[in-house]
Amino acid sequence: MPTSPKRLVNVNGQVFSEHEARISVFDRGFLFGDSIYEVTQTIEGVPFMLDDHLDRLYRSGEKIALQLPYSRDELKKELARVLKALAVEQAYVRIIITRGEGEIGLDPGLATSANLVIIAKELPPYPRHWYTEGVDVIVAHTLRNPTESIDPNVKSGNYLNNVMAFAEASRLKAFDALMLNHRGEVTEGTTSNVWIVNEQGLLKTPPLASGLLEGITRKHLLEICREQKIEVSLTPIHLEELQKAQEIFLTSSTKRLVPLRTLDGKAVGSGSPGPIWRQLSTAYDAHVQKIQAQAREQWQAVNP
Amino acid sequence: MPTSPKRLVNVNGQVFSEHEARISVFDRGFLFGDSIYEVTQTIEGVPFMLDDHLDRLYRSGEKIALQLPYSRDELKKELARVLKALAVEQAYVRIIITRGEGEIGLDPGLATSANLVIIAKELPPYPRHWYTEGVDVIVAHTLRNPTESIDPNVKSGNYLNNVMAFAEASRLKAFDALMLNHRGEVTEGTTSNVWIVNEQGLLKTPPLASGLLEGITRKHLLEICREQKIEVSLTPIHLEELQKAQEIFLTSSTKRLVPLRTLDGKAVGSGSPGPIWRQLSTAYDAHVQKIQAQAREQWQAVNP
Repeated sequence: MPTSPKRLVNVNGQVFSEHEARISVFDRGFLFGDSIYEVTQTIEGVPFMLDDHLDRLYRSGEKIALQLPYSRDELKKELARVLKALAVEQAYVRIIITRGEGEIGLDPGLATSANLVIIAKELPPYPRHWYTEGVDVIVAHTLRNPTESIDPNVKSGNYLNNVMAFAEASRLKAFDALMLNHRGEVTEGTTSNVWIVNEQGLLKTPPLASGLLEGITRKHLLEICREQKIEVSLTPIHLEELQKAQEIFLTSSTKRLVPLRTLDGKAVGSGSPGPIWRQLSTAYDAHVQKIQAQAREQWQAVNP
Repeated sequence: MPTSPKRLVNVNGQVFSEHEARISVFDRGFLFGDSIYEVTQTIEGVPFMLDDHLDRLYRSGEKIALQLPYSRDELKKELARVLKALAVEQAYVRIIITRGEGEIGLDPGLATSANLVIIAKELPPYPRHWYTEGVDVIVAHTLRNPTESIDPNVKSGNYLNNVMAFAEASRLKAFDALMLNHRGEVTEGTTSNVWIVNEQGLLKTPPLASGLLEGITRKHLLEICREQKIEVSLTPIHLEELQKAQEIFLTSSTKRLVPLRTLDGKAVGSGSPGPIWRQLSTAYDAHVQKIQAQAREQWQAVNP
């Protein structure tokens, strides 16, 4: 695809062009989805909330007993290596760690040593209309994997569940799909968390017990709400409550707060981005500015 | 690993040594587990029940809307290519088809064209004591993915669920783990189907509705039972019925019928392979001989 932005990849410490960036077919990430990952971006060349993402990467690893053979500083060094080669202001960053290669078999003990893959590519700005008009989202028929099978709070290479849910959205030209769990509770979007202002005007986001990834934007937004004394309920959200919501918005590290215009083809509230979304979106952007200023100092001290 | 048998890999029509066999890090099989696969073996150079496996590969593809850009004959030709290069009597064969590469994103429409990977390696005989003494198996705490999330009847690259269940077995030095579904019904082993002779002497194997892969050995064994007028019940098996079974055995394409010696550390029946396992195992081996003789003629006509 010649029109795509340039992509560079750090594979185990060496930077490759996108066409040369390859991994063994015996890698367990390829064979079984036996891998973990994180996605973030850079702003003016500085990684966004990197420590939060690395925290979660190590937590994901612990949950599937995948020991990372890299210290946090080594991972930062490898990220800096590929970002320096890419040399763009705003980059998409995907850090993948697999359990490695070995004899073929489910036993994790067959793997010899983990593989590290860091994909970096230029990230063009998102369309403005997502934020000025809102996006169209559906509720998928595909149910989210339950915690007792594959914990959605592990960010792993097993994403076929989400691929199938997204495919439902894609067929309807929707922006994303929300997924329910087996008890009928709303969990999350396919790559985002979800928030609502319900019929009674209460701000809510699903509790982790509903089976979802603990998003980093979600975490920071909960902190902002605490600081600003905005009430947030972390109780399960059922489909009916979702359908009657005055406002719905998605949160993700790269897209931040994205308001919904429609849910399953019906207008959400007034059909335009609502006042609570606006208030929180503004507060989040200000919060990010502060955090990112500190991050820039730290990053530039190590990577002048 | 110098002591391992030689492995050769056909990647999109070209045969590579194991160290050269690589795939793009942008392949959706690597990123998301967005792939399907089959495992079989050869006997005296001839693939075992290949048409059954290819049938299932196409069915898996249909279920996740992954269109295979290969005809059945083309797949056979590619398999023959790598087997000819490997040149062993008995080979393990893994055929993987991924949705391909493209821009990074869950949307299946981003993939350009599917990738084909066929791994072949020498398959040494399995240890005799598996069949003379039986194997030790546990019941995993990890529950099998439910059909409404990721259908276990799709043989996909999303196997972390099974990896985690197998890891429980591995920690206890067990041969395999049986997985229950969210209703407490027995589904399957991590890479096998399961059969029991219950306390009342009735032969049973879980119905597909319990959420499991429709195994090819399972299918053939059901045919044999029909022909020989052996009653088989395809009703859900709960944990208690499993624990009280007189006999339990696993079935898989490569390992055939493997009897259990213990379940969760307790003897199954007499603690030795039982009479129904013996009868069915003998009948299955005879059935296979007939089928394989026909397969040999067909295969050798095309691959002299």
